[in-house]
Amino acid sequence: MKRYVLILAGGKGTRMGGALPKQFLSLGERPLLMHTLEGFYRWDAGAERILVLPAGQGPRWQACCEEFPAMPPHRVIEGGATRFHSVQNALALVEEEGWVGVHDGVRPLVSLRVIRDCFAAAERYGAAVPVTPVVDSLGRISPPGTLQSVDRRDFFAVQTPQVFRSEWIREAYRQAYTPAFTDDASVVEASGRRIHTVPGNRENLKITGPLDLLIAEALLKHPLPCPDD
Amino acid sequence: MKRYVLILAGGKGTRMGGALPKQFLSLGERPLLMHTLEGFYRWDAGAERILVLPAGQGPRWQACCEEFPAMPPHRVIEGGATRFHSVQNALALVEEEGWVGVHDGVRPLVSLRVIRDCFAAAERYGAAVPVTPVVDSLGRISPPGTLQSVDRRDFFAVQTPQVFRSEWIREAYRQAYTPAFTDDASVVEASGRRIHTVPGNRENLKITGPLDLLIAEALLKHPLPCPDD
Repeated sequence: MKRYVLILAGGKGTRMGGALPKQFLSLGERPLLMHTLEGFYRWDAGAERILVLPAGQGPRWQACCEEFPAMPPHRVIEGGATRFHSVQNALALVEEEGWVGVHDGVRPLVSLRVIRDCFAAAERYGAAVPVTPVVDSLGRISPPGTLQSVDRRDFFAVQTPQVFRSEWIREAYRQAYTPAFTDDASVVEASGRRIHTVPGNRENLKITGPLDLLIAEALLKHPLPCPDD
Repeated sequence: MKRYVLILAGGKGTRMGGALPKQFLSLGERPLLMHTLEGFYRWDAGAERILVLPAGQGPRWQACCEEFPAMPPHRVIEGGATRFHSVQNALALVEEEGWVGVHDGVRPLVSLRVIRDCFAAAERYGAAVPVTPVVDSLGRISPPGTLQSVDRRDFFAVQTPQVFRSEWIREAYRQAYTPAFTDDASVVEASGRRIHTVPGNRENLKITGPLDLLIAEALLKHPLPCPDD
């Protein structure tokens, strides 16, 4: 049974406030995506890594790989208009039966423990995602401008990698797209499957703005006193 | 009309993994609470600042204020068994009519813009809180171990300062306590008032663990390229 890791790097990175797509940013003087690829390479060098890039960014990434020859081996495929369509494209390369992990390229600080636990839970239950408690209070805005409090203890933040039995994710991605699909778990759940949860690691942040990049740089330089691995 | 700021520093800080309550931690070589007090002092030196400390910590804080004589002026009161009871205690010192902001002591990086906007909105609408978008996917765990996705675009993270007309918050805190009261907005909302929302600042993080302290240190040393103020 084969293990696949789809690394989604299809975002336009507009929130960074620059022209550079965020997946081409540097972290600790190496490409952000190199950290992400290395995390999964350290976990299982024999897994197949598939990097999903925005249309037209292939040559730029190729140049980046030449500049950093220690880049872990991986295949490259073009993404689609949304995250959903990017995963659909990448699933065409999942030819054997096994397990498929889908990971946000801009989460370079996923821990080995979390990757290992997610795949182990998916191998047992069919589908697994990492979750962390919600720290801030949580509310809905309804009507516009007015807060409706909800109890944050009922909710969890869902990270990646989200790992699925290959038949499950293939079947789920045959459904028609709706904007309510915000991640892969929501797609697989909509196809009628149960999603198992495992504890995530809080350092596994999604780099979507300058604040996150600053945090990630700080974490690289000063790993936490009580690391999560 | 008078402005009050209740700064809640009643937590036991057990998540920091040490014996030191988190509100006595240092940030940039000064007490974390000094940054918080200064934020509100810079906004309006004439507002009344009331610091709510855990029972028995008064002498320790007094020693801290002697060591840092630039500490902005403030009154001190003992907290209660929960956040709800701490606010109840502190409201005894709110003697005049006006507006009351309640702020987590462990949010030292609140921006001036957010303080100003929250008080301005409360002065207009009676109650206002800062909110930020939810970045991670969001789910409920139901049944245990199984994820139920929810659309994160329907939710917001609620920060502090939470600001209220003094009659509104006094009246709300006469209600019986329930554990569903996770913040002041939920208490005031339960008393039948509408809570207005204003955009928060993401750097206004709640320091609840070593990761947050690392982030706050990084933000102090390298302010964001596009500051929020």
